[in-house]
Amino acid sequence: MTNTQDTTSMKAASVSSTKNLTKHEHTMTNSKMIYAFEEGNKDMKTLLGGKGANLAEMTNLGLPVPPGFTITTDMCNYYLENNSLPETFDAMLNERIAELEAKLGKKFGDIKNPLLVSVRSGAAISMPGMMDTILNLGLNDEAVEGLALKTQNPRFSYDSYRRFIQMFSDVVLGVDHEHFEEEIDKIKRAKGVKLDTELTAEDLKNLIVEYKKVIKSHIGTDFPQEPLKQMKLAIEAVFKSWNNSRAIHYRRINRVTNIKGTAVNIQAMVFGNMGDTSGTGVCFTRNPATGEKKFYGEFLMNAQGEDVVAGIRTPQSIDQLAEVMPKSYAQLLEIQAKLEKHYRDMQDMEFTIEDGRLFILQTRNGKRTAQAAIRIASEMIKEGVISEDEAVMRIDPYILDSLLHPTIDPKAKKNVVAKGLPASPGACTGKVVFSADDAVIWTNKKEKVILVRKETTPEDIHGMNVAEGILTSMGGMTSHAALVCRGMGKPCVAGCSAISVDKNTKTVKIGDVVVNEGEIISLDGATGSVILGEVAMVKAGVSGDFGIIMGFADRERKLRVRTNVDTPFDAKVAMDFGAEGVGLCRTEHMFFQEGRIDNVREMIMSKSEEGRRKALAKLLPYQREDFVGIFEVMTGLPVTVRLLDPPLHEFLPEKEAKIRELSERMNVSFDDLMSVISSLHEINPMLGHRGCRLGITYPEIYEMQAQAIIEAGIEASRKGAVVKVEIEIPLVANLNEFKAMKELVLNVIAKYKDAITFDYKIGTMIELPRACLIADKLAEIADFFSFGTNDLTQTTYGISRDDVGKFMGAYIDKGIFERDPSESIDKEGVGELMKMAVNKARSVKPGIDIGICGEHGGDPDSVKFCHEIGLNYVSCSPYRVPIARLSAGQASIKDKGVKASSTT
Amino acid sequence: MTNTQDTTSMKAASVSSTKNLTKHEHTMTNSKMIYAFEEGNKDMKTLLGGKGANLAEMTNLGLPVPPGFTITTDMCNYYLENNSLPETFDAMLNERIAELEAKLGKKFGDIKNPLLVSVRSGAAISMPGMMDTILNLGLNDEAVEGLALKTQNPRFSYDSYRRFIQMFSDVVLGVDHEHFEEEIDKIKRAKGVKLDTELTAEDLKNLIVEYKKVIKSHIGTDFPQEPLKQMKLAIEAVFKSWNNSRAIHYRRINRVTNIKGTAVNIQAMVFGNMGDTSGTGVCFTRNPATGEKKFYGEFLMNAQGEDVVAGIRTPQSIDQLAEVMPKSYAQLLEIQAKLEKHYRDMQDMEFTIEDGRLFILQTRNGKRTAQAAIRIASEMIKEGVISEDEAVMRIDPYILDSLLHPTIDPKAKKNVVAKGLPASPGACTGKVVFSADDAVIWTNKKEKVILVRKETTPEDIHGMNVAEGILTSMGGMTSHAALVCRGMGKPCVAGCSAISVDKNTKTVKIGDVVVNEGEIISLDGATGSVILGEVAMVKAGVSGDFGIIMGFADRERKLRVRTNVDTPFDAKVAMDFGAEGVGLCRTEHMFFQEGRIDNVREMIMSKSEEGRRKALAKLLPYQREDFVGIFEVMTGLPVTVRLLDPPLHEFLPEKEAKIRELSERMNVSFDDLMSVISSLHEINPMLGHRGCRLGITYPEIYEMQAQAIIEAGIEASRKGAVVKVEIEIPLVANLNEFKAMKELVLNVIAKYKDAITFDYKIGTMIELPRACLIADKLAEIADFFSFGTNDLTQTTYGISRDDVGKFMGAYIDKGIFERDPSESIDKEGVGELMKMAVNKARSVKPGIDIGICGEHGGDPDSVKFCHEIGLNYVSCSPYRVPIARLSAGQASIKDKGVKASSTT
Repeated sequence: MTNTQDTTSMKAASVSSTKNLTKHEHTMTNSKMIYAFEEGNKDMKTLLGGKGANLAEMTNLGLPVPPGFTITTDMCNYYLENNSLPETFDAMLNERIAELEAKLGKKFGDIKNPLLVSVRSGAAISMPGMMDTILNLGLNDEAVEGLALKTQNPRFSYDSYRRFIQMFSDVVLGVDHEHFEEEIDKIKRAKGVKLDTELTAEDLKNLIVEYKKVIKSHIGTDFPQEPLKQMKLAIEAVFKSWNNSRAIHYRRINRVTNIKGTAVNIQAMVFGNMGDTSGTGVCFTRNPATGEKKFYGEFLMNAQGEDVVAGIRTPQSIDQLAEVMPKSYAQLLEIQAKLEKHYRDMQDMEFTIEDGRLFILQTRNGKRTAQAAIRIASEMIKEGVISEDEAVMRIDPYILDSLLHPTIDPKAKKNVVAKGLPASPGACTGKVVFSADDAVIWTNKKEKVILVRKETTPEDIHGMNVAEGILTSMGGMTSHAALVCRGMGKPCVAGCSAISVDKNTKTVKIGDVVVNEGEIISLDGATGSVILGEVAMVKAGVSGDFGIIMGFADRERKLRVRTNVDTPFDAKVAMDFGAEGVGLCRTEHMFFQEGRIDNVREMIMSKSEEGRRKALAKLLPYQREDFVGIFEVMTGLPVTVRLLDPPLHEFLPEKEAKIRELSERMNVSFDDLMSVISSLHEINPMLGHRGCRLGITYPEIYEMQAQAIIEAGIEASRKGAVVKVEIEIPLVANLNEFKAMKELVLNVIAKYKDAITFDYKIGTMIELPRACLIADKLAEIADFFSFGTNDLTQTTYGISRDDVGKFMGAYIDKGIFERDPSESIDKEGVGELMKMAVNKARSVKPGIDIGICGEHGGDPDSVKFCHEIGLNYVSCSPYRVPIARLSAGQASIKDKGVKASSTT
Repeated sequence: MTNTQDTTSMKAASVSSTKNLTKHEHTMTNSKMIYAFEEGNKDMKTLLGGKGANLAEMTNLGLPVPPGFTITTDMCNYYLENNSLPETFDAMLNERIAELEAKLGKKFGDIKNPLLVSVRSGAAISMPGMMDTILNLGLNDEAVEGLALKTQNPRFSYDSYRRFIQMFSDVVLGVDHEHFEEEIDKIKRAKGVKLDTELTAEDLKNLIVEYKKVIKSHIGTDFPQEPLKQMKLAIEAVFKSWNNSRAIHYRRINRVTNIKGTAVNIQAMVFGNMGDTSGTGVCFTRNPATGEKKFYGEFLMNAQGEDVVAGIRTPQSIDQLAEVMPKSYAQLLEIQAKLEKHYRDMQDMEFTIEDGRLFILQTRNGKRTAQAAIRIASEMIKEGVISEDEAVMRIDPYILDSLLHPTIDPKAKKNVVAKGLPASPGACTGKVVFSADDAVIWTNKKEKVILVRKETTPEDIHGMNVAEGILTSMGGMTSHAALVCRGMGKPCVAGCSAISVDKNTKTVKIGDVVVNEGEIISLDGATGSVILGEVAMVKAGVSGDFGIIMGFADRERKLRVRTNVDTPFDAKVAMDFGAEGVGLCRTEHMFFQEGRIDNVREMIMSKSEEGRRKALAKLLPYQREDFVGIFEVMTGLPVTVRLLDPPLHEFLPEKEAKIRELSERMNVSFDDLMSVISSLHEINPMLGHRGCRLGITYPEIYEMQAQAIIEAGIEASRKGAVVKVEIEIPLVANLNEFKAMKELVLNVIAKYKDAITFDYKIGTMIELPRACLIADKLAEIADFFSFGTNDLTQTTYGISRDDVGKFMGAYIDKGIFERDPSESIDKEGVGELMKMAVNKARSVKPGIDIGICGEHGGDPDSVKFCHEIGLNYVSCSPYRVPIARLSAGQASIKDKGVKASSTT
């Protein structure tokens, strides 16, 4: 048959007529809200959800799938918008049920041979957190007898009914499962038995009576007996669960933003718990942990899916199925091979064997570890299954982190006592200390420490340097602690508002637990978990396959990938990760090192330009030396050096004891020092006297820095390095600022005119909205631009990265933000400004080099956005360089029309 | 003659040929860099400067103007850009000098009859601070003898020469005048005389020898003898002086941004000091202080201009000239009447009488007080001289402030010890106090006080309320102190970094002077001056003429003018100034009043929503009562109420003593209170947990406020008021924020559905760059927009209003900023975002009401900008309402093609 029919007028369509339709023959109409499995295919995920689309695909492949139908995600949207189903829905549903009844020769609620179904949610991508599954729907006081009759197994029948009541009441009627468990306990006490399985058919029958009382007392009405009513309530419950907080939370942490609503799959029940010729299991076409090409999985005989999850019995390895049920095993082996070949990706399948008959209940691209993802992609190229481009698209850049940092052993037991922001990936264990100085002292005693602070400041660098990881109660994803840790490749949990740090008593209160100095905690920087005690770790490790896939990404990508580093050592690390230059060298970090910081302070304390110049002259050799080192490591590659950016008060101590100590060391009166500190105090330091504002008010600082850069360039060139330096002016908002600072740098350069044999450029950060608005004017006189999207996000949104912790949680939970804009570029706002700036700049200087050096430079989605708006490079911390390379490669491959494959 | 000639090839043009050319016959060419007076006219100010254009105009009117020529502002630009004059310049200059020599029958440097000239700067608008005047140029060792011969007055001749040397050396050669005064002192001591006038011709001749030695020893070369070289050096010195710091400073404080460069006027000398038939003076066609229509001025017989300025002799009133030199007086009277009629504005003229012959050296529209400006404009309408529209354009809105506030008596002697930012106009005198509490205590003792603080916070409101004025060492034009003072119409000098406040010792150090509590200082909020001791004041006062002119402005303007007020009392004040509604009612200011603040604190201290609701319920009646009052005053007019905006920590005390006091009053432990305060601490409060972020995290706060507004609307309506309330959501950056808050307000409104008989709207502040970028989306669901340009400027520029003091001075001095963007809208940045937002919003909702409620709403240039981009209204503090009305009227009249008249 080739005719297609509008389902709303398809009342009389025979089962066979729908069954034989090919997928091409179906045209979607606005009114088609329910699809029989035969009517769908795997490319209809948006409409049917992943589960529904794959059930349809498998049905059409001729695999043994219990029949059923899928209610579309469009219907979910309609329901969520209107808070009700359309009037025509009942008629459509009745048709589908009638088809199913006809197909199976069973009847809904029948006293002899009742039709039972499962109801499952299924969005376009897999999404735990929604209402998942209701089994055995269709049972009622009459049908339970029919099932007993049909199966000749009353105990199985009553047990199925009471499970159905319990599951349905919990997730649909909102009656908590503990009330039902109380009833089971009562009856077990009365009978003097310990296990549920010891209860007889009669016991379960009585239990059902008690269950119904519970329901009546909680919701005031009886448990719904009519199967159609049960089904409609279940459908609505699935739709509603799209917006429950767990589902929203899942979408948030997994960056799921582009899909709307879930589908509902209604499928005839098959029973794995009908005796010793029945069973149920989960299997993978390849090992999801290692990627090894070997059929993998586990199963339980005489069990339903929920028993596997409950973990009461230990499942058997899938190999053993060959011995127990060789025929089913052989069939399964054949099917899994067919499915992997068909889907061209590793599959994760669910199956049930009912009385010796195999049914496939689900297939999907299997989730896998980063290691497995890389091995599978690499081997599938060799097998000729996928192309090199496709292999690159198969790796989720977000999971690469776990390759590059140690992670918590997934099997480890852990006592998570608080959750903060996952500010820097990796996991660590150590003894709690509360000050940078203590961190150093304990480390010197060979202790591993975790530094716990309200927030960190540049004063803490020495402590952060030696700590295993950092935990802060304030600050967001781009707070000082987060930035520094990402740069160091060190775990950080930031903005953990559930903890209360008291540095005086050296205690931290986490909920009701008080942790003292020296007690052990662990951090999981990938999830933001704070864990009491020690936890087992898995080491980082990359295979040869990794390099191969990265090579393909590198071959395709158009974006260059640079790194943000401040020392020759970090530059070396970044080179090993594949960095193609330095996108941001923050000169101020060099100021904090011991031996230098006091010169910086002397400069700040000077009341005259002459005094400042004297102090700066002492700093010059240090700066020059660092630059020489970086230029040598990065020979032949561009190095962007940003002139001093932070406000000067960051270089002075805050605590009285430290101030006293410094006043003695510097031979300055305490009052004078206090008075300088107080005069430098700022109410909003983020918007204060920093960036080029320092260069304009104290030109001697930038002059010294320019001199150090140029002299270092001369020296490194003399030593054989090919120097390409880019001198960068921070926080430019207005053309005159850049003009003045460019002139200052050029004046310094003029002094070395004859000695300079290397390339230099003078450009600016674009990190304020106003800089984007005048990008055309700036481009006329700037050699390059680098987007500082940390500050650009803060100013565009008016949000301080240090204070965002107080409301970011509520913003994500309430759906105000889909993602934290400090994590991934806010395309609608910040991204618009970036686009505007790029277009304005290119309109006057088409070839101008434009990059990004904010933390977003290492975020996959942001990297792809940078590719789309035509940037030349991204720059990120060393440990994120591979992520940026992969993401950039994917962005280019996507332009060729190759799609990403999702592991749904 | 009717032919025009290219000046570069005009070598042979006779004097008469140029003289008879009419102004229309001259076509400007790029190469025409020098204009004879006969070649210009009054409309050529941009090219010839104000002085040059008017000298040209008077020459062509046939008035007795000494002949001369003007070097254009284009040449100034050329010089400043190239650091040298063009090669063709010398030839052009020589021609002009030759013409002048021919016209006067004198020769440059001639030993018998030397040509002497004055060299004067003259930009398009009058601009003190540049090199002003060199007289007697052309004198040298030979010409001085020629002048002596010609005038038969060797003493006059030598005195002229030594004055020329002294003036020229000081301003052109950079040899300080004190070195020359030393020489005079020496010679006077040697001769035993006291006055310069007691020196003989021979003494002066000797003095000239000494002067030349001084020059040689300072600059290493001789005083230039060649008149042409003297002239070229003088011209270059004038050009350079365009960029000296005094000139830049003047342009800054007078908001001169659109003109580039100065012209140079070279004019034949006439001498008012040639005996008793000579004299010099300044006169006005009307009284510049009162506006009275009466010829006004003063003169000195036997004097040169510099003698008048020196103030050694007391000038006579112009009336007396009628007795001394009746013929010259009659001629002057005729000329002044002719000039006022010709220029259609009050004129300020300079004249010299040389040996009975009257010369006019300058005319310009006279500067005048605000009172005089209004009286003159009003009377000129009646005289039929100018139209009503022109009268409106004649009033400089910036000077209206002086009509509305008391000002320092211009004649008063004052000891200015420091300068801060002119943050709120008006002047005041009072005893210094250092805390808000002390301000109240002293005021209760009937003392007038000035509150001196590092910065003010909302905690200080009670003290600010009773103080005469406020002086702060930190903060900018939109700091808390500045905003509150402008709202109260009270003088404020803010960000006065020259003072150092010590609240503990209750002293303020101003430079080297220490002022203790109780000592008297005065403030001039219009100039930012801090004055020791008491100063005489001039009261504010407006005449009937003021109302007449404002009426004309109101008739023409398209912008409505609303006001920013928080109390019924202020609303009344604003109504009297002509406000047409409330553009911003900041509800938080109501929170600070006594009896309420502790309820606010109770709310903040509550750990549960329930506790917060309980505390909020206590605040509700207060809020409602305030709103009822404002609605009643503003009956029939729109009132925009902004929901809570500041971060909560602003409502808690900062000082330990205050915290202890509060903990006792609230019966909360000190530690608990400290812990709440510490948990609310923010690093960048401007970018922190405030605005709608509070409404989203604590919906109960906004619910209470919405309820208070709606209940107040119902009550005020019942009392007969016509209520038009606009509920405004602050700090919106993203569509979901506005959606959520609009829904919250609508839910409250729904509860009162049947009782609401008045108009309400729900809209948003546009005060973050991101809000501008998504203005189209916001406009779809918002009823109105109001630009919060204070915050928009801070975020667009990345500048904190509280911290800007540290670098704003340097920014203005170095010309980075032309104007402080918090004073007047930064059109290139903030203005671009505003334009974008208006266009986006109107593209989806053409009729949407858009206003501005930032402090810029009372700044004349900003008001005009708001008119240009099509806003519907501006809103400003009550005392600025008349300024906004006038500015808005001028903007509309300008659209009709009527030009503003500048008082140059």
